[in-house]
Amino acid sequence: MMDMVRVDLAGRGYDIRIGPGLLARAGAHIGPLLARPFTVIVTDETVAGLHLERLKAGLAAAGIDAETIVLPPGEATKSMAELTRLLERLLALKVERDDLIVALGGGVIGDLAGFAAAVLRRGVGLIQAPTTLLAQVDSSVGGKTGVNSAAGKNLIGAFHQPRLVLADTEVLETLPPRDFLAGYAEVVKYGLLGDAGFFAWLEKNGPAMLAGDEAARIYAVRRCCEMKAAIVARDEFERGERALLNLGHTFGHALEAATGYSARLLHGEGVAIGLALAFEAWRAWGCAPRNAPRACGRT
Amino acid sequence: MMDMVRVDLAGRGYDIRIGPGLLARAGAHIGPLLARPFTVIVTDETVAGLHLERLKAGLAAAGIDAETIVLPPGEATKSMAELTRLLERLLALKVERDDLIVALGGGVIGDLAGFAAAVLRRGVGLIQAPTTLLAQVDSSVGGKTGVNSAAGKNLIGAFHQPRLVLADTEVLETLPPRDFLAGYAEVVKYGLLGDAGFFAWLEKNGPAMLAGDEAARIYAVRRCCEMKAAIVARDEFERGERALLNLGHTFGHALEAATGYSARLLHGEGVAIGLALAFEAWRAWGCAPRNAPRACGRT
Repeated sequence: MMDMVRVDLAGRGYDIRIGPGLLARAGAHIGPLLARPFTVIVTDETVAGLHLERLKAGLAAAGIDAETIVLPPGEATKSMAELTRLLERLLALKVERDDLIVALGGGVIGDLAGFAAAVLRRGVGLIQAPTTLLAQVDSSVGGKTGVNSAAGKNLIGAFHQPRLVLADTEVLETLPPRDFLAGYAEVVKYGLLGDAGFFAWLEKNGPAMLAGDEAARIYAVRRCCEMKAAIVARDEFERGERALLNLGHTFGHALEAATGYSARLLHGEGVAIGLALAFEAWRAWGCAPRNAPRACGRT
Repeated sequence: MMDMVRVDLAGRGYDIRIGPGLLARAGAHIGPLLARPFTVIVTDETVAGLHLERLKAGLAAAGIDAETIVLPPGEATKSMAELTRLLERLLALKVERDDLIVALGGGVIGDLAGFAAAVLRRGVGLIQAPTTLLAQVDSSVGGKTGVNSAAGKNLIGAFHQPRLVLADTEVLETLPPRDFLAGYAEVVKYGLLGDAGFFAWLEKNGPAMLAGDEAARIYAVRRCCEMKAAIVARDEFERGERALLNLGHTFGHALEAATGYSARLLHGEGVAIGLALAFEAWRAWGCAPRNAPRACGRT
Protein backbone atom coordinates (compact mmCIF):
# COMPACT_ATOMS: atom_id res chain seq x y z
CA MET A 1 0.00 0.00 0.00
CA MET A 2 2.03 2.94 -1.31
CA ASP A 3 0.89 5.96 -3.26
CA MET A 4 3.13 8.25 -5.22
CA VAL A 5 3.04 11.82 -6.43
CA ARG A 6 5.66 13.19 -8.80
CA VAL A 7 6.87 16.79 -8.57
CA ASP A 8 7.76 17.77 -12.13
CA LEU A 9 10.67 20.19 -12.18
CA ALA A 10 13.04 20.06 -15.14
CA GLY A 11 16.13 18.14 -14.10
CA ARG A 12 15.15 18.32 -10.43
CA GLY A 13 11.90 16.39 -10.29
CA TYR A 14 11.29 14.02 -7.41
CA ASP A 15 8.88 11.50 -5.90
CA ILE A 16 6.65 11.93 -2.90
CA ARG A 17 6.04 8.39 -1.65
CA ILE A 18 3.11 7.97 0.71
CA GLY A 19 2.11 4.99 2.82
CA PRO A 20 2.66 3.05 6.04
CA GLY A 21 6.01 1.50 6.91
CA LEU A 22 8.17 3.65 4.65
CA LEU A 23 10.68 4.48 7.41
CA ALA A 24 11.22 0.79 8.14
CA ARG A 25 12.04 0.26 4.44
CA ALA A 26 13.94 3.55 4.07
CA GLY A 27 17.15 1.90 2.88
CA ALA A 28 15.46 0.54 -0.22
CA HIS A 29 14.09 3.99 -1.05
CA ILE A 30 17.12 6.09 -0.15
CA GLY A 31 19.98 3.74 -1.07
CA PRO A 32 19.71 4.23 -4.84
CA LEU A 33 20.14 8.01 -4.39
CA LEU A 34 23.34 7.85 -2.36
CA ALA A 35 26.85 8.30 -3.78
CA ARG A 36 28.24 6.26 -0.86
CA PRO A 37 26.48 4.25 1.89
CA PHE A 38 26.44 7.17 4.33
CA THR A 39 23.91 9.75 5.46
CA VAL A 40 23.16 12.06 8.38
CA ILE A 41 19.71 12.10 9.96
CA VAL A 42 18.65 15.44 11.44
CA THR A 43 15.75 15.16 13.88
CA ASP A 44 14.45 16.47 17.21
CA GLU A 45 14.31 14.88 20.65
CA THR A 46 10.59 14.08 20.48
CA VAL A 47 10.73 12.44 17.06
CA ALA A 48 13.99 10.65 17.88
CA GLY A 49 12.29 8.92 20.80
CA LEU A 50 9.46 7.70 18.58
CA HIS A 51 10.87 6.95 15.14
CA LEU A 52 14.65 7.28 14.90
CA GLU A 53 15.54 3.66 15.65
CA ARG A 54 13.08 2.42 13.01
CA LEU A 55 14.63 4.68 10.38
CA LYS A 56 18.17 3.75 11.36
CA ALA A 57 17.29 0.05 11.21
CA GLY A 58 15.70 0.59 7.80
CA LEU A 59 18.88 2.22 6.56
CA ALA A 60 21.18 -0.33 8.20
CA ALA A 61 19.26 -3.12 6.48
CA ALA A 62 20.53 -1.67 3.20
CA GLY A 63 24.07 -1.29 4.55
CA ILE A 64 23.78 2.48 4.99
CA ASP A 65 25.75 4.04 7.85
CA ALA A 66 23.67 6.85 9.40
CA GLU A 67 25.00 9.48 11.76
CA THR A 68 22.41 11.33 13.83
CA ILE A 69 22.00 14.94 14.95
CA VAL A 70 19.21 15.45 17.50
CA LEU A 71 18.00 19.02 18.08
CA PRO A 72 15.66 20.54 20.67
CA PRO A 73 12.00 20.38 19.62
CA GLY A 74 9.94 23.51 18.99
CA GLU A 75 9.78 26.60 16.82
CA ALA A 76 12.74 28.24 18.63
CA THR A 77 14.99 25.72 16.86
CA LYS A 78 14.28 27.46 13.54
CA SER A 79 16.89 30.15 14.20
CA MET A 80 20.17 31.34 12.67
CA ALA A 81 21.94 30.28 15.87
CA GLU A 82 20.69 26.66 15.58
CA LEU A 83 21.42 26.70 11.85
CA THR A 84 25.01 27.71 12.55
CA ARG A 85 25.45 24.95 15.12
CA LEU A 86 23.86 22.39 12.79
CA LEU A 87 26.14 23.37 9.90
CA GLU A 88 29.26 23.06 12.06
CA ARG A 89 28.14 19.61 13.19
CA LEU A 90 27.44 18.49 9.62
CA LEU A 91 30.89 19.70 8.56
CA ALA A 92 32.48 17.92 11.53
CA LEU A 93 30.78 14.73 10.27
CA LYS A 94 32.52 15.31 6.91
CA VAL A 95 29.37 15.61 4.83
CA GLU A 96 30.50 16.10 1.23
CA ARG A 97 28.77 17.70 -1.76
CA ASP A 98 27.47 14.39 -3.13
CA ASP A 99 26.04 13.22 0.21
CA LEU A 100 22.40 13.45 1.26
CA ILE A 101 20.93 14.63 4.56
CA VAL A 102 17.68 13.14 5.87
CA ALA A 103 15.29 15.49 7.67
CA LEU A 104 13.18 13.36 10.04
CA GLY A 105 10.51 15.43 11.75
CA GLY A 106 7.84 18.06 11.40
CA GLY A 107 7.96 21.46 9.74
CA VAL A 108 10.62 22.88 12.04
CA ILE A 109 13.11 20.09 11.33
CA GLY A 110 12.28 20.01 7.62
CA ASP A 111 12.71 23.76 7.24
CA LEU A 112 15.93 23.94 9.28
CA ALA A 113 17.64 20.83 7.93
CA GLY A 114 16.50 21.74 4.43
CA PHE A 115 18.07 25.18 4.75
CA ALA A 116 21.25 23.63 6.12
CA ALA A 117 21.36 21.30 3.09
CA ALA A 118 20.84 24.29 0.79
CA VAL A 119 23.90 26.16 2.06
CA LEU A 120 26.27 23.41 3.23
CA ARG A 121 29.10 23.44 0.69
CA ARG A 122 26.74 25.61 -1.41
CA GLY A 123 24.21 22.78 -1.59
CA VAL A 124 23.99 19.11 -0.69
CA GLY A 125 21.10 16.72 -1.30
CA LEU A 126 18.10 16.45 0.99
CA ILE A 127 15.54 13.79 1.76
CA GLN A 128 12.41 14.83 3.60
CA ALA A 129 10.92 12.26 5.98
CA PRO A 130 8.00 14.26 7.41
CA THR A 131 6.50 12.92 10.64
CA THR A 132 3.55 15.27 11.15
CA LEU A 133 0.40 15.66 9.08
CA LEU A 134 1.31 19.30 8.48
CA ALA A 135 4.74 18.40 7.14
CA GLN A 136 3.41 15.54 5.01
CA VAL A 137 0.75 17.62 3.26
CA ASP A 138 2.58 20.90 3.06
CA SER A 139 6.01 21.88 4.38
CA SER A 140 8.06 18.89 3.17
CA VAL A 141 6.99 19.40 -0.44
CA GLY A 142 8.03 22.22 -2.77
CA GLY A 143 11.49 23.20 -1.58
CA LYS A 144 10.78 26.09 0.77
CA THR A 145 13.31 26.00 3.58
CA GLY A 146 14.36 28.57 6.14
CA VAL A 147 14.52 29.96 9.64
CA ASN A 148 12.79 32.72 11.54
CA SER A 149 14.16 36.20 12.16
CA ALA A 150 13.50 38.86 14.76
CA ALA A 151 11.49 40.54 11.99
CA GLY A 152 9.20 37.58 11.35
CA LYS A 153 8.76 33.96 10.35
CA ASN A 154 10.61 32.32 7.44
CA LEU A 155 12.25 35.56 6.34
CA ILE A 156 15.66 33.88 5.87
CA GLY A 157 15.93 30.79 3.72
CA ALA A 158 16.30 29.18 0.35
CA PHE A 159 14.39 27.28 -2.30
CA HIS A 160 15.99 23.85 -2.15
CA GLN A 161 14.01 20.95 -3.55
CA PRO A 162 14.39 17.55 -1.86
CA ARG A 163 15.54 14.54 -3.86
CA LEU A 164 12.76 12.44 -2.32
CA VAL A 165 9.91 12.80 0.17
CA LEU A 166 9.05 9.75 2.28
CA ALA A 167 5.68 10.36 3.93
CA ASP A 168 5.25 7.39 6.24
CA THR A 169 1.60 7.59 7.25
CA GLU A 170 2.14 5.06 10.03
CA VAL A 171 4.01 7.67 12.09
CA LEU A 172 0.85 9.76 12.24
CA GLU A 173 -0.46 7.25 14.78
CA THR A 174 1.89 8.69 17.40
CA LEU A 175 0.91 12.29 16.65
CA PRO A 176 -0.96 13.97 19.54
CA PRO A 177 -4.56 14.82 18.53
CA ARG A 178 -3.86 18.54 18.86
CA ASP A 179 -0.99 18.32 16.34
CA PHE A 180 -3.07 16.17 14.02
CA LEU A 181 -5.84 18.76 14.05
CA ALA A 182 -3.38 21.57 13.47
CA GLY A 183 -2.14 19.74 10.37
CA TYR A 184 -5.73 19.14 9.32
CA ALA A 185 -6.08 22.91 8.91
CA GLU A 186 -3.59 22.76 6.03
CA VAL A 187 -5.52 19.83 4.55
CA VAL A 188 -8.73 21.85 4.62
CA LYS A 189 -6.79 24.73 3.02
CA TYR A 190 -6.22 22.59 -0.09
CA GLY A 191 -9.94 21.91 -0.31
CA LEU A 192 -10.70 25.61 -0.01
CA LEU A 193 -8.12 26.84 -2.48
CA GLY A 194 -9.11 24.84 -5.46
CA ASP A 195 -10.94 21.55 -5.04
CA ALA A 196 -14.53 21.78 -3.83
CA GLY A 197 -14.89 18.02 -4.32
CA PHE A 198 -12.02 17.37 -1.93
CA PHE A 199 -13.55 19.80 0.55
CA ALA A 200 -16.81 17.84 0.38
CA TRP A 201 -14.84 14.59 0.79
CA LEU A 202 -13.25 16.03 3.92
CA GLU A 203 -16.62 17.07 5.34
CA LYS A 204 -17.64 13.42 5.04
CA ASN A 205 -14.35 11.60 5.77
CA GLY A 206 -12.60 14.00 8.14
CA PRO A 207 -13.85 12.22 11.27
CA ALA A 208 -12.62 8.82 10.00
CA MET A 209 -9.24 10.38 9.17
CA LEU A 210 -8.95 11.81 12.64
CA ALA A 211 -9.98 8.46 14.15
CA GLY A 212 -7.08 6.73 12.37
CA ASP A 213 -8.50 5.41 9.08
CA GLU A 214 -5.26 4.62 7.19
CA ALA A 215 -6.76 4.65 3.70
CA ALA A 216 -8.44 8.00 4.33
CA ARG A 217 -5.17 9.45 5.59
CA ILE A 218 -3.23 8.22 2.59
CA TYR A 219 -5.85 9.62 0.23
CA ALA A 220 -5.85 13.03 1.94
CA VAL A 221 -2.06 13.27 2.00
CA ARG A 222 -1.88 12.27 -1.65
CA ARG A 223 -4.56 14.73 -2.77
CA CYS A 224 -2.85 17.62 -0.94
CA CYS A 225 0.55 16.67 -2.37
CA GLU A 226 -0.93 16.44 -5.88
CA MET A 227 -2.28 19.96 -5.61
CA LYS A 228 0.89 21.36 -4.12
CA ALA A 229 3.07 19.55 -6.68
CA ALA A 230 1.04 20.98 -9.54
CA ILE A 231 1.26 24.53 -8.20
CA VAL A 232 4.99 24.26 -7.42
CA ALA A 233 5.71 22.87 -10.90
CA ARG A 234 4.02 25.93 -12.41
CA ASP A 235 5.50 28.54 -10.04
CA GLU A 236 8.49 27.16 -8.13
CA PHE A 237 9.76 30.52 -6.88
CA GLU A 238 6.43 32.05 -5.87
CA ARG A 239 6.20 34.77 -8.47
CA GLY A 240 2.43 34.31 -8.71
CA GLU A 241 0.14 31.37 -8.24
CA ARG A 242 2.16 29.72 -5.47
CA ALA A 243 1.15 32.58 -3.14
CA LEU A 244 -2.26 30.88 -3.12
CA LEU A 245 -0.75 28.28 -0.78
CA ASN A 246 -0.44 31.03 1.82
CA LEU A 247 -4.24 31.13 2.10
CA GLY A 248 -5.07 31.91 5.73
CA HIS A 249 -1.42 32.52 6.57
CA THR A 250 -1.51 36.34 6.68
CA PHE A 251 -3.92 36.37 9.61
CA GLY A 252 -2.31 33.17 10.91
CA HIS A 253 1.19 34.65 11.10
CA ALA A 254 -0.14 37.74 12.85
CA LEU A 255 -1.79 35.53 15.46
CA GLU A 256 1.39 33.47 15.85
CA ALA A 257 3.41 36.67 16.34
CA ALA A 258 0.90 37.92 18.91
CA THR A 259 1.27 34.68 20.87
CA GLY A 260 5.07 34.75 20.61
CA TYR A 261 5.35 31.71 18.28
CA SER A 262 4.76 29.60 21.37
CA ALA A 263 2.90 26.38 22.04
CA ARG A 264 -0.09 28.55 22.94
CA LEU A 265 -0.94 28.58 19.25
CA LEU A 266 0.44 25.97 16.85
CA HIS A 267 1.13 27.02 13.26
CA GLY A 268 -1.75 24.95 11.95
CA GLU A 269 -4.08 26.42 14.55
CA GLY A 270 -3.08 29.89 13.38
CA VAL A 271 -3.84 28.80 9.82
CA ALA A 272 -7.23 27.40 10.84
CA ILE A 273 -8.27 30.66 12.49
CA GLY A 274 -6.62 32.60 9.66
CA LEU A 275 -8.69 30.75 7.04
CA ALA A 276 -11.89 31.59 8.90
CA LEU A 277 -10.87 35.24 9.28
CA ALA A 278 -9.88 35.53 5.61
CA PHE A 279 -13.22 34.23 4.35
CA GLU A 280 -15.05 36.36 6.94
CA ALA A 281 -13.16 39.46 5.78
CA TRP A 282 -13.87 38.78 2.11
CA ARG A 283 -17.56 38.32 2.86
CA ALA A 284 -17.58 41.62 4.74
CA TRP A 285 -15.78 43.38 1.89
CA GLY A 286 -18.06 41.79 -0.65
CA CYS A 287 -15.04 40.69 -2.68
CA ALA A 288 -11.84 38.71 -2.49
CA PRO A 289 -8.37 40.06 -3.24
CA ARG A 290 -6.55 39.27 -6.45
CA ASN A 291 -5.30 35.67 -6.43
CA ALA A 292 -7.93 34.53 -3.97
CA PRO A 293 -9.42 31.10 -4.72
CA ARG A 294 -12.55 31.02 -6.81
CA ALA A 295 -14.25 29.02 -4.08
CA CYS A 296 -14.85 32.23 -2.12
CA GLY A 297 -17.29 33.55 -4.66
CA ARG A 298 -15.03 35.54 -6.97
CA THR A 299 -15.38 34.66 -10.62
CA MET B 1 36.08 54.16 -22.01
CA MET B 2 34.01 51.19 -20.84
CA ASP B 3 34.41 47.52 -21.66
CA MET B 4 31.76 44.90 -21.18
CA VAL B 5 31.66 41.14 -20.70
CA ARG B 6 28.40 39.22 -20.79
CA VAL B 7 27.84 36.20 -18.56
CA ASP B 8 25.49 33.95 -20.52
CA LEU B 9 23.17 32.05 -18.20
CA ALA B 10 19.70 31.22 -19.48
CA GLY B 11 17.27 33.70 -17.97
CA ARG B 12 19.87 34.95 -15.50
CA GLY B 13 22.59 36.40 -17.71
CA TYR B 14 24.22 39.67 -16.71
CA ASP B 15 26.77 42.29 -17.69
CA ILE B 16 30.18 42.89 -16.21
CA ARG B 17 30.90 46.53 -16.99
CA ILE B 18 34.55 47.57 -16.68
CA GLY B 19 36.10 51.03 -16.73
CA PRO B 20 36.92 54.15 -14.75
CA GLY B 21 34.21 56.29 -13.14
CA LEU B 22 31.50 53.65 -13.01
CA LEU B 23 30.68 54.29 -9.33
CA ALA B 24 30.18 57.99 -10.02
CA ARG B 25 27.65 57.05 -12.74
CA ALA B 26 26.17 54.13 -10.80
CA GLY B 27 22.62 55.48 -10.89
CA ALA B 28 22.49 55.25 -14.67
CA HIS B 29 23.68 51.63 -14.55
CA ILE B 30 21.67 50.43 -11.56
CA GLY B 31 18.49 52.49 -11.91
CA PRO B 32 17.00 50.47 -14.79
CA LEU B 33 17.24 47.29 -12.67
CA LEU B 34 15.36 48.60 -9.64
CA ALA B 35 11.68 47.99 -8.93
CA ARG B 36 11.61 51.18 -6.84
CA PRO B 37 14.22 53.94 -6.32
CA PHE B 38 15.73 52.30 -3.26
CA THR B 39 18.73 50.14 -2.48
CA VAL B 40 21.02 49.18 0.40
CA ILE B 41 24.80 49.41 0.03
CA VAL B 42 26.77 46.88 2.07
CA THR B 43 30.42 47.81 2.50
CA ASP B 44 33.27 47.86 5.04
CA GLU B 45 34.83 50.70 7.00
CA THR B 46 37.94 50.95 4.80
CA VAL B 47 36.04 51.05 1.52
CA ALA B 48 33.38 53.36 2.95
CA GLY B 49 36.05 55.95 3.74
CA LEU B 50 37.35 55.83 0.17
CA HIS B 51 34.43 55.25 -2.18
CA LEU B 52 31.02 55.26 -0.46
CA GLU B 53 30.21 58.94 -0.94
CA ARG B 54 30.97 58.72 -4.66
CA LEU B 55 28.65 55.75 -5.07
CA LYS B 56 25.89 57.40 -3.02
CA ALA B 57 26.21 60.59 -5.08
CA GLY B 58 26.06 58.52 -8.26
CA LEU B 59 22.86 56.88 -7.09
CA ALA B 60 21.34 60.12 -5.77
CA ALA B 61 21.92 61.73 -9.17
CA ALA B 62 19.42 59.20 -10.53
CA GLY B 63 16.99 59.79 -7.66
CA ILE B 64 17.86 56.54 -5.91
CA ASP B 65 17.64 56.48 -2.12
CA ALA B 66 20.49 54.36 -0.72
CA GLU B 67 20.71 53.09 2.85
CA THR B 68 24.15 51.99 4.01
CA ILE B 69 25.43 49.15 6.18
CA VAL B 70 29.12 49.42 7.08
CA LEU B 71 30.85 46.29 8.43
CA PRO B 72 34.27 45.73 9.98
CA PRO B 73 36.98 45.03 7.37
CA GLY B 74 38.82 41.73 7.21
CA GLU B 75 38.27 38.01 6.70
CA ALA B 76 36.70 37.59 10.17
CA THR B 77 33.62 39.40 8.81
CA LYS B 78 32.88 36.38 6.59
CA SER B 79 31.17 34.51 9.43
CA MET B 80 27.72 33.16 10.27
CA ALA B 81 27.55 35.64 13.16
CA GLU B 82 28.12 38.64 10.87
CA LEU B 83 25.73 37.15 8.30
CA THR B 84 23.02 36.92 10.96
CA ARG B 85 23.55 40.54 12.04
CA LEU B 86 23.58 41.71 8.42
CA LEU B 87 20.33 39.88 7.63
CA GLU B 88 18.57 41.39 10.65
CA ARG B 89 19.71 44.88 9.59
CA LEU B 90 18.54 44.34 6.01
CA LEU B 91 15.16 43.17 7.29
CA ALA B 92 14.95 46.18 9.62
CA LEU B 93 15.51 48.37 6.53
CA LYS B 94 12.47 46.66 4.97
CA VAL B 95 14.30 45.18 1.99
CA GLU B 96 11.67 43.39 -0.11
CA ARG B 97 11.94 40.52 -2.59
CA ASP B 98 12.09 42.82 -5.63
CA ASP B 99 14.79 45.07 -4.16
CA LEU B 100 18.50 44.91 -4.95
CA ILE B 101 21.45 45.06 -2.57
CA VAL B 102 24.76 46.58 -3.68
CA ALA B 103 27.96 44.92 -2.43
CA LEU B 104 30.69 47.59 -2.44
CA GLY B 105 34.06 46.14 -1.51
CA GLY B 106 36.50 43.32 -1.95
CA GLY B 107 35.99 39.58 -1.81
CA VAL B 108 34.88 39.52 1.81
CA ILE B 109 32.07 42.02 1.29
CA GLY B 110 31.04 40.49 -2.04
CA ASP B 111 30.88 36.97 -0.60
CA LEU B 112 29.05 38.00 2.58
CA ALA B 113 26.59 40.46 1.04
CA GLY B 114 26.04 38.06 -1.85
CA PHE B 115 25.17 35.25 0.54
CA ALA B 116 22.86 37.56 2.47
CA ALA B 117 21.11 38.45 -0.79
CA ALA B 118 20.80 34.73 -1.61
CA VAL B 119 18.92 33.91 1.59
CA LEU B 120 17.09 37.13 2.49
CA ARG B 121 13.41 36.37 1.84
CA ARG B 122 14.73 33.29 -0.03
CA GLY B 123 16.56 35.49 -2.51
CA VAL B 124 16.79 39.18 -3.42
CA GLY B 125 18.78 40.78 -6.22
CA LEU B 126 22.45 41.63 -5.94
CA ILE B 127 24.78 44.08 -7.64
CA GLN B 128 28.49 43.54 -7.24
CA ALA B 129 30.64 46.67 -7.13
CA PRO B 130 34.09 45.14 -6.56
CA THR B 131 36.77 47.52 -5.30
CA THR B 132 39.85 45.27 -5.31
CA LEU B 133 41.67 43.74 -8.25
CA LEU B 134 40.99 40.28 -6.80
CA ALA B 135 37.25 40.93 -6.61
CA GLN B 136 37.12 42.51 -10.07
CA VAL B 137 38.83 39.61 -11.83
CA ASP B 138 37.47 36.76 -9.79
CA SER B 139 35.22 36.78 -6.74
CA SER B 140 32.54 39.22 -7.95
CA VAL B 141 31.83 37.16 -11.07
CA GLY B 142 30.13 33.78 -11.24
CA GLY B 143 27.76 33.74 -8.28
CA LYS B 144 29.79 32.00 -5.61
CA THR B 145 28.89 33.51 -2.25
CA GLY B 146 29.45 32.35 1.30
CA VAL B 147 31.09 32.56 4.67
CA ASN B 148 33.81 30.64 6.49
CA SER B 149 33.28 27.90 9.05
CA ALA B 150 35.36 26.50 11.85
CA ALA B 151 36.01 23.62 9.44
CA GLY B 152 37.40 25.80 6.66
CA LYS B 153 36.90 28.61 4.16
CA ASN B 154 33.75 29.11 2.09
CA LEU B 155 32.14 25.88 3.33
CA ILE B 156 28.76 27.57 3.87
CA GLY B 157 27.19 29.52 1.05
CA ALA B 158 25.09 29.64 -2.08
CA PHE B 159 25.32 30.06 -5.81
CA HIS B 160 23.63 33.41 -6.37
CA GLN B 161 24.39 35.25 -9.57
CA PRO B 162 24.47 39.05 -9.45
CA ARG B 163 22.22 41.10 -11.72
CA LEU B 164 25.14 43.33 -12.69
CA VAL B 165 28.86 43.71 -11.92
CA LEU B 166 30.27 47.24 -11.94
CA ALA B 167 34.06 47.00 -11.97
CA ASP B 168 35.21 50.60 -11.58
CA THR B 169 38.91 50.43 -12.44
CA GLU B 170 39.46 53.93 -11.04
CA VAL B 171 39.07 52.60 -7.47
CA LEU B 172 42.14 50.41 -7.99
CA GLU B 173 44.20 53.60 -7.64
CA THR B 174 43.54 53.63 -3.89
CA LEU B 175 44.43 49.96 -3.47
CA PRO B 176 47.60 49.40 -1.39
CA PRO B 177 50.37 47.83 -3.51
CA ARG B 178 50.32 44.67 -1.40
CA ASP B 179 46.59 44.16 -2.13
CA PHE B 180 47.10 44.92 -5.80
CA LEU B 181 49.82 42.29 -6.02
CA ALA B 182 47.68 39.77 -4.16
CA GLY B 183 44.94 40.29 -6.75
CA TYR B 184 47.52 40.01 -9.50
CA ALA B 185 48.05 36.39 -8.45
CA GLU B 186 44.48 35.61 -9.59
CA VAL B 187 45.17 37.45 -12.85
CA VAL B 188 48.25 35.31 -13.46
CA LYS B 189 46.11 32.27 -12.64
CA TYR B 190 43.92 32.98 -15.68
CA GLY B 191 47.01 33.10 -17.87
CA LEU B 192 48.20 29.79 -16.47
CA LEU B 193 44.92 27.94 -16.68
CA GLY B 194 44.18 28.42 -20.31
CA ASP B 195 45.62 31.39 -22.19
CA ALA B 196 49.38 31.29 -22.83
CA GLY B 197 49.04 34.45 -24.92
CA PHE B 198 47.57 36.32 -21.97
CA PHE B 199 50.36 34.97 -19.75
CA ALA B 200 52.90 36.33 -22.21
CA TRP B 201 51.03 39.65 -22.30
CA LEU B 202 51.26 39.80 -18.51
CA GLU B 203 54.99 39.07 -18.57
CA LYS B 204 55.34 42.14 -20.76
CA ASN B 205 52.63 44.45 -19.41
CA GLY B 206 52.46 43.45 -15.74
CA PRO B 207 54.84 46.22 -14.61
CA ALA B 208 52.80 48.91 -16.41
CA MET B 209 49.59 47.50 -14.86
CA LEU B 210 51.12 47.67 -11.42
CA ALA B 211 52.37 51.21 -12.09
CA GLY B 212 48.82 52.38 -12.84
CA ASP B 213 48.37 52.05 -16.62
CA GLU B 214 44.58 52.35 -16.90
CA ALA B 215 44.25 50.74 -20.34
CA ALA B 216 46.38 47.76 -19.26
CA ARG B 217 44.26 47.31 -16.13
CA ILE B 218 41.01 47.41 -18.07
CA TYR B 219 42.34 44.89 -20.57
CA ALA B 220 43.53 42.51 -17.84
CA VAL B 221 40.24 42.72 -15.92
CA ARG B 222 38.26 42.15 -19.10
CA ARG B 223 40.36 39.18 -20.22
CA CYS B 224 40.03 37.49 -16.80
CA CYS B 225 36.27 38.14 -16.72
CA GLU B 226 35.90 36.76 -20.25
CA MET B 227 37.59 33.52 -19.24
CA LYS B 228 35.65 33.22 -16.01
CA ALA B 229 32.34 34.05 -17.71
CA ALA B 230 32.93 31.35 -20.33
CA ILE B 231 33.74 28.71 -17.72
CA VAL B 232 30.82 29.69 -15.48
CA ALA B 233 28.42 29.60 -18.43
CA ARG B 234 29.49 26.02 -19.15
CA ASP B 235 29.60 24.80 -15.53
CA GLU B 236 27.72 27.15 -13.21
CA PHE B 237 27.57 24.77 -10.25
CA GLU B 238 31.14 23.44 -10.39
CA ARG B 239 30.41 19.88 -11.41
CA GLY B 240 33.54 19.77 -13.55
CA GLU B 241 35.45 22.40 -15.49
CA ARG B 242 34.80 25.23 -13.03
CA ALA B 243 37.09 23.50 -10.52
CA LEU B 244 39.92 24.67 -12.80
CA LEU B 245 39.40 28.14 -11.34
CA ASN B 246 40.64 26.74 -8.02
CA LEU B 247 44.12 26.35 -9.53
CA GLY B 248 46.63 27.05 -6.76
CA HIS B 249 43.88 27.25 -4.15
CA THR B 250 44.42 23.83 -2.53
CA PHE B 251 47.90 24.73 -1.35
CA GLY B 252 46.78 28.33 -0.90
CA HIS B 253 43.93 27.45 1.48
CA ALA B 254 46.26 25.23 3.51
CA LEU B 255 48.70 28.13 3.87
CA GLU B 256 45.87 30.49 4.82
CA ALA B 257 44.67 28.02 7.45
CA ALA B 258 48.22 27.66 8.81
CA THR B 259 48.46 31.44 9.18
CA GLY B 260 45.02 31.69 10.79
CA TYR B 261 43.35 33.52 7.85
CA SER B 262 45.09 36.63 9.15
CA ALA B 263 46.70 39.63 7.47
CA ARG B 264 49.97 37.68 7.66
CA LEU B 265 48.99 36.05 4.38
CA LEU B 266 46.40 37.59 2.08
CA HIS B 267 44.20 35.24 0.02
CA GLY B 268 45.90 36.27 -3.20
CA GLU B 269 49.31 35.75 -1.65
CA GLY B 270 48.26 32.24 -0.67
CA VAL B 271 47.12 31.68 -4.26
CA ALA B 272 50.45 32.99 -5.63
CA ILE B 273 52.46 30.61 -3.48
CA GLY B 274 49.90 27.86 -4.12
CA LEU B 275 50.28 28.23 -7.90
CA ALA B 276 54.05 27.88 -7.61
CA LEU B 277 53.71 24.86 -5.33
CA ALA B 278 51.17 23.18 -7.61
CA PHE B 279 53.37 23.48 -10.68
CA GLU B 280 56.42 22.42 -8.65
CA ALA B 281 54.55 19.35 -7.40
CA TRP B 282 53.37 18.37 -10.88
CA ARG B 283 56.90 18.69 -12.20
CA ALA B 284 58.16 16.47 -9.37
CA TRP B 285 55.42 13.92 -10.05
CA GLY B 286 56.07 14.07 -13.76
CA CYS B 287 52.35 14.54 -14.38
CA ALA B 288 49.40 16.78 -13.60
CA PRO B 289 46.16 15.63 -11.98
CA ARG B 290 42.97 15.23 -13.98
CA ASN B 291 41.47 18.64 -14.82
CA ALA B 292 44.84 20.41 -14.59
CA PRO B 293 45.42 23.05 -17.26
CA ARG B 294 47.20 21.93 -20.40
CA ALA B 295 49.77 24.69 -19.87
CA CYS B 296 51.49 22.54 -17.23
CA GLY B 297 52.67 20.03 -19.78
CA ARG B 298 49.84 17.50 -19.78
CA THR B 299 48.40 16.81 -23.22
